[in-house]
Amino acid sequence: MSKTIAINAGSSSLKWQLYQMPEEEVLAAGIIERIGLKDSISTVKFDGKKDSKTLNIADHVQAVKMLLDDLIRLHIIADYKEITGVGHRIVAGGEYFKESVIVDDEALAKIEELAALAPLHNPANAAGIRAFKDILPDITSVAVFDTAFHSTMNDYAYLYPIPQKYYRDYQVRKYGAHGTSHQYVAQKAAEILERPLNELKLITAHIGNGVSLTANYHGQSVDTSMGFTPLAGPMMGTRSGDIDPAVIPYLIKYDSDLVDAAAVVNMLNKESGLAGVSEHSSDMRDIEAGLEKQDKNSVLAYNIFIDRLKKFIGQYVAVLNGIDALVFTAGMGENSVNMRRDIIAGLSWFGLKINPEKNVFGYVGDISAPDSKIKILVIPTDEELMIARDVERLKNAK
Amino acid sequence: MSKTIAINAGSSSLKWQLYQMPEEEVLAAGIIERIGLKDSISTVKFDGKKDSKTLNIADHVQAVKMLLDDLIRLHIIADYKEITGVGHRIVAGGEYFKESVIVDDEALAKIEELAALAPLHNPANAAGIRAFKDILPDITSVAVFDTAFHSTMNDYAYLYPIPQKYYRDYQVRKYGAHGTSHQYVAQKAAEILERPLNELKLITAHIGNGVSLTANYHGQSVDTSMGFTPLAGPMMGTRSGDIDPAVIPYLIKYDSDLVDAAAVVNMLNKESGLAGVSEHSSDMRDIEAGLEKQDKNSVLAYNIFIDRLKKFIGQYVAVLNGIDALVFTAGMGENSVNMRRDIIAGLSWFGLKINPEKNVFGYVGDISAPDSKIKILVIPTDEELMIARDVERLKNAK
Repeated sequence: MSKTIAINAGSSSLKWQLYQMPEEEVLAAGIIERIGLKDSISTVKFDGKKDSKTLNIADHVQAVKMLLDDLIRLHIIADYKEITGVGHRIVAGGEYFKESVIVDDEALAKIEELAALAPLHNPANAAGIRAFKDILPDITSVAVFDTAFHSTMNDYAYLYPIPQKYYRDYQVRKYGAHGTSHQYVAQKAAEILERPLNELKLITAHIGNGVSLTANYHGQSVDTSMGFTPLAGPMMGTRSGDIDPAVIPYLIKYDSDLVDAAAVVNMLNKESGLAGVSEHSSDMRDIEAGLEKQDKNSVLAYNIFIDRLKKFIGQYVAVLNGIDALVFTAGMGENSVNMRRDIIAGLSWFGLKINPEKNVFGYVGDISAPDSKIKILVIPTDEELMIARDVERLKNAK
Repeated sequence: MSKTIAINAGSSSLKWQLYQMPEEEVLAAGIIERIGLKDSISTVKFDGKKDSKTLNIADHVQAVKMLLDDLIRLHIIADYKEITGVGHRIVAGGEYFKESVIVDDEALAKIEELAALAPLHNPANAAGIRAFKDILPDITSVAVFDTAFHSTMNDYAYLYPIPQKYYRDYQVRKYGAHGTSHQYVAQKAAEILERPLNELKLITAHIGNGVSLTANYHGQSVDTSMGFTPLAGPMMGTRSGDIDPAVIPYLIKYDSDLVDAAAVVNMLNKESGLAGVSEHSSDMRDIEAGLEKQDKNSVLAYNIFIDRLKKFIGQYVAVLNGIDALVFTAGMGENSVNMRRDIIAGLSWFGLKINPEKNVFGYVGDISAPDSKIKILVIPTDEELMIARDVERLKNAK
């Protein structure tokens, strides 16, 4: 009996999923929210049931302790010892981590050092690692990096056209993100297409609250739309994606509420995207409801969203000089039927053609028309499973 | 006898070209440099000859006076009265100017008001207008805007995915630039293709020291790569083009030489692009010389340059859902044979194929292979002629 837990720790939250491995069976999943705040909430889903409670949880160590006790209380496990591995999602791996690693003291120190590249995320990720090390010191602990899959990009793709000293001295370059998701759906796409991944050219479009696209050449990321940070790329739920950088000093000069570049970038990260344009929601379901009511701002937000996605698909077709398949994944990618329809309708010249009978809510797999030159796939992502698999692989390799 | 002069006034320079209209014959052209500095230089080219002199010129009024006297001294004109029109290139027309206009007091005031959008350029452009008004008050004075051609973009193309108040209160949006050039080469392309412009889908690539691409649908700009300012878009001679905006606060935090957002954007405008990556030149001729010597930084700068251009071509093929022709113009666009070859080689899937016998230095016109599905054209731009034509048109319409 070998159980592995996949962890995604934020500054005040801890998302988890427990697997029976190597069967890859999900035994339970849950989230602990408002850690360190009043009235923390812990939710456990298992066996078709849901257990929820509100209490005060001071820190990540206490959160992990409670989570493990809940697993026993709910008879999901009988003993801590059943859990033999834990995998942690880490946002920034910089140039140091090109693949998942077993977390020793050196790796943990390095993850904390890389906080400069992800000031909100890496310290929280590290807190999650420390909490598990504290309570289950002997299990296999693995770090899985959001950036690692993109470490195969060429220098001309990951370097910005700025003086090279900023790369040499301050590591300014494109790192990308969502790597685990892009890698997972690319593997799945090869299975669905029944072709070897190392012969395929794919664009994988992870369209969730964060949005990123990856140009995948023969299984490797050769370009991706997130950049030095997850702000770059197409329009997102609350993020602007790419804009003229000269807007930043202009707004500082003219808007007294935006005192410095950090304030503007905070606005670009948190108040922009669908939320900023629609003026009512960052959620595509609300935007689509707005479309039905012919709400002007919803129409505008939707049109910009489609426009920017089409542009990124076009540019990655150029990067790859043609593609075999376009893959939609994550919240909107998996569920927004209209968005997929409207993107594909605007790209008919490329040989993309949707099958309206398959482009329906809940359908998974190939949604392209039989005469589409390029396949169009909908594949639910599963970052947690990728993390559990990496734990299993590295545990067995020890 | 009707002569028109086209003016491009910078803060310390005045470029001019004198036309016989409506014959569109260039009578003379020249540039006055270092206006307001010691040892100003004035150069006049005419009739295969060149006249050059160094003297002190205090301001734009003195520059215009001297220029007109030179025209008489060199027997290019016999009397001021032969000049019946002047056209001024204006960088920023904002949302106010959607086409060229006769400059009255109101228009001049508006041009100066729009200096917020082009702090270096509009005041200099206005100084050029005032100088001509001072000396030749009765001739037709026309303002031609770099941005006007792009006023046909849809809202979803010109608006950024940021809170709408920044557009409403501070006019933050994409304006584009190089409009006169994009319009000129699109018209020329239709002539070469012997097809009506209003049936064509074109990408026009203005690749000079500044670089911009425009998606032209049936004669109208529907998207362009420069943005709120000319910093946006692909890599340029000294400009970065698009980068993750979050790089700005990061560099301010870590690099003590970059004190604020204005300093970073100044670096992105003046020290980046080919110059910043190659660490030796902003000029593609020097970069290509570096390639021959296998200079590592030149190779990197060249590869990034090609990569970014390919991506913009790909995205505008997506915007237009297919194109009839790709047009290269301006310094590098007209002259860099290798750049054109390498861009097209990477886009063969799109149906672009170059004719190596025609893709040679000095060749103008269709350089695509007979079996290329998309035409590839090289067209020398002529912004001055477009300005002279607008003067002629508005003068006759008065």
